[in-house]
Amino acid sequence: MPNPTAAMLVIGDEILSGRTRDANMFFLAGELCKVGIDLKEVRVVSDDAPAIVAAVQALSAAYDEVFTSGGIGPTHDDITADCIARAFDRPIDVREDARKLLTDHWEARGVEITQARLRMARIPEGAKLIDNPVSIAPGFTVENVHVMAGVPMVFEAMVASVLPHLTGGSPLLSQSLRINRGEGEIAGPLSDLARDFPALSIGSYPFQRDGVFGANIVIRGADGAEVDAAMARLAELFPA
Amino acid sequence: MPNPTAAMLVIGDEILSGRTRDANMFFLAGELCKVGIDLKEVRVVSDDAPAIVAAVQALSAAYDEVFTSGGIGPTHDDITADCIARAFDRPIDVREDARKLLTDHWEARGVEITQARLRMARIPEGAKLIDNPVSIAPGFTVENVHVMAGVPMVFEAMVASVLPHLTGGSPLLSQSLRINRGEGEIAGPLSDLARDFPALSIGSYPFQRDGVFGANIVIRGADGAEVDAAMARLAELFPA
Repeated sequence: MPNPTAAMLVIGDEILSGRTRDANMFFLAGELCKVGIDLKEVRVVSDDAPAIVAAVQALSAAYDEVFTSGGIGPTHDDITADCIARAFDRPIDVREDARKLLTDHWEARGVEITQARLRMARIPEGAKLIDNPVSIAPGFTVENVHVMAGVPMVFEAMVASVLPHLTGGSPLLSQSLRINRGEGEIAGPLSDLARDFPALSIGSYPFQRDGVFGANIVIRGADGAEVDAAMARLAELFPA
Repeated sequence: MPNPTAAMLVIGDEILSGRTRDANMFFLAGELCKVGIDLKEVRVVSDDAPAIVAAVQALSAAYDEVFTSGGIGPTHDDITADCIARAFDRPIDVREDARKLLTDHWEARGVEITQARLRMARIPEGAKLIDNPVSIAPGFTVENVHVMAGVPMVFEAMVASVLPHLTGGSPLLSQSLRINRGEGEIAGPLSDLARDFPALSIGSYPFQRDGVFGANIVIRGADGAEVDAAMARLAELFPA
């Protein structure tokens, strides 16, 4: 059975303006790989409602799971929850369980409960809350879309809350070999190797370091014995 | 006149598998911001022809400029050039000027000219070559799509070759203020500020560091005097 597929949607002007280097994509990609869910596509869009709604609808229809990052805080530019509601044509309002989570937390800390803060309790109808052990304000899941915060520490905690509830597949095993020859030299034999092991994914990632051209060859697959066999052939082809 | 818009397409399994943390998106976002081209969307897709073709067609139709990164080397997983040709329904073959660039370079260095290496001279009909001062193998532009290498050093050199030929807009000016209060506290006044300066983009980027909640408020716009005025109001609202 093929592995479940996934997409990620990163929401936020700060990535597109070059202000912030994304960290959540790299984190999520690694976590999904471990549990055998194949991340097939990532999109980054700005804090723009039509763009968010269109991307959520397209990705939700095309993949088994969708993970979003960003735009669920209390400020005027946090529009993700409303966009998700619109994408699935569901009502959205402050929800009692989410409000209680937040007010209990704030009251214990003497934090004032403002209208703005209560925006974080706005949850689309029928959504399932995602636990946020870091700063309490929850994420939520609507159908196959998991809506999470953009702050990396919170995003990572929410991913840890969500993943155990999802059906994974065969974790992808990978091995790699660094070859200090230009890709043009290794391309032919590598192409033959890829043809002989059609169930494996064989990638060549070129580098240039201190004037030396080389490539890291990465062999990935669900069957460890097959990955081993291809790796042995590769090492024979290009002895160190 | 509004600024030209752009999208980026990152092609490569290595990002989606969590093996590599993307660097090109962050670099391009910063460069486009400087020349007043608004990066509106980024997509990351795997080395899969239908996914690449569909993304190129969608982004090319929706934005003024499209920049792609990855998949133009000599190995079997380098399929970007063929996908671009297919996306625009153009023939593709080894092109004489590209072949000459490469063979001159290789002959001078005693590098063997292989079939695999010559794959890098495959250019869709009617494309304009993009200069690659780092490793010679050129990128190319078809219509509004600029096709570049994935290796960061080469990608950056190609971006420098392409940008001077494009029409930019008003560079976005930005100023930011770090406020050591939770977003819930600043959200109300910030929302009023955003309403009073509709031509500016006012973003709030929360952080949590050593147990302290705060937010970096970034005010962006093309008119420096207006950014200054909004910044002064912000500093009044939240004195240090």
